[in-house]
Amino acid sequence: MIELSQAFATAIARHTAYLDHKKFDLWLDGFHDESSYDVTTKYNLESGFPAGLIHCQTKGQLRDRILSIARVNVYPPQSYRHILSASMTGDRRSEIITPFVCYLIFPNSDTILFASGEYIDVWVDDADCRLGFRITERTVVLDSDRIDTALAIPL
Amino acid sequence: MIELSQAFATAIARHTAYLDHKKFDLWLDGFHDESSYDVTTKYNLESGFPAGLIHCQTKGQLRDRILSIARVNVYPPQSYRHILSASMTGDRRSEIITPFVCYLIFPNSDTILFASGEYIDVWVDDADCRLGFRITERTVVLDSDRIDTALAIPL
Amino acid sequence: MIELSQAFATAIARHTAYLDHKKFDLWLDGFHDESSYDVTTKYNLESGFPAGLIHCQTKGQLRDRILSIARVNVYPPQSYRHILSASMTGDRRSEIITPFVCYLIFPNSDTILFASGEYIDVWVDDADCRLGFRITERTVVLDSDRIDTALAIPL
Repeated sequence: MIELSQAFATAIARHTAYLDHKKFDLWLDGFHDESSYDVTTKYNLESGFPAGLIHCQTKGQLRDRILSIARVNVYPPQSYRHILSASMTGDRRSEIITPFVCYLIFPNSDTILFASGEYIDVWVDDADCRLGFRITERTVVLDSDRIDTALAIPL
Repeated sequence: MIELSQAFATAIARHTAYLDHKKFDLWLDGFHDESSYDVTTKYNLESGFPAGLIHCQTKGQLRDRILSIARVNVYPPQSYRHILSASMTGDRRSEIITPFVCYLIFPNSDTILFASGEYIDVWVDDADCRLGFRITERTVVLDSDRIDTALAIPL
Repeated sequence: MIELSQAFATAIARHTAYLDHKKFDLWLDGFHDESSYDVTTKYNLESGFPAGLIHCQTKGQLRDRILSIARVNVYPPQSYRHILSASMTGDRRSEIITPFVCYLIFPNSDTILFASGEYIDVWVDDADCRLGFRITERTVVLDSDRIDTALAIPL
């Protein structure tokens, strides 16, 4: 079980930076071979509805999604800027919750707030990953129901 | 006196998340029986003016305020999303300062930046609280004088 | 070489707060006598272009810039609010990267998102500074090319 530590704070910071720098291979490497990745909304989660936006049951599905972004990158100049708040442990074993906001950067236009919410993750120690940890389960819970469903890059 | 530690970072993260999840009883439990809670602006504070927005001299006053929100919740679908920056110690003994921004989430409309500022807190160790710490004094110093005075949920 | 630690997180939090509180002397004291300070954009950095917005090769140049702000402060009521995400180590020795957003506060008007990006810093231990550390090199990499070139206060 992961203890919240400076090492963990650095790991999630680095993992998130891979997305902001579009280093999708490194981001993907932060997931365990047996891992799920879901994006849902707070309303859906509290209502017991299944994840509506993205639902990857395996790392293979997540990889396919990432590869399709890399190949058909229709919005190449856009990028994300995530800001993480302090993490806390959740109710389940090894569960770690990290509030975040994500801005969408358009190089020659105004930056917009793209999404806010929480990462509800299960992280495990994994010395084979350069982060020192890997995710076995990530649920991205968005605060608002108003989200751009294009959602080209994963959150 | 509190040392800034991972345990403290987790405690303030969790305490703030209670507000974002509208778990007002748990949020209130993070305050010591003898505690004050004020919301003011940077301009008021620097001018030596008394706190103008919220002024609770006792935990009982804060509890009354919270209960009135729970009973007369005129804007039930709204919620907050706080993002905390790293904390630092202040000039006074046991004083801890935490910059924050707070977004207001409307489920079916755009998220807005509601407030930014600093928590100037006095926290003490308290093993009886599940956070491990309790607040004896909180002053919320808002950066802007332009704040929605309705301020239904405490910051 | 700096290890990421709670002491460092507190140091960068405090150093950044000096800017938000316009304590420019204390902010400047966080720089080593032999230090550089640059503000550039992600696009410029990735294209190998020299820093375009601010380029101070010495602490003296940075001091001159700060003094000129203090003397010719044309926008006195404005202030910043920085929110820092968790720091991570960079590829170079003693390099520390800290994502941030910076809001511009107008006391009687709406707060705006002023800039987002990363501090790419080299920090060294320095017991003579009240932060416990000093910067020998800071590159502020802005996400967007759209930045107010007035940039009165350094980021």
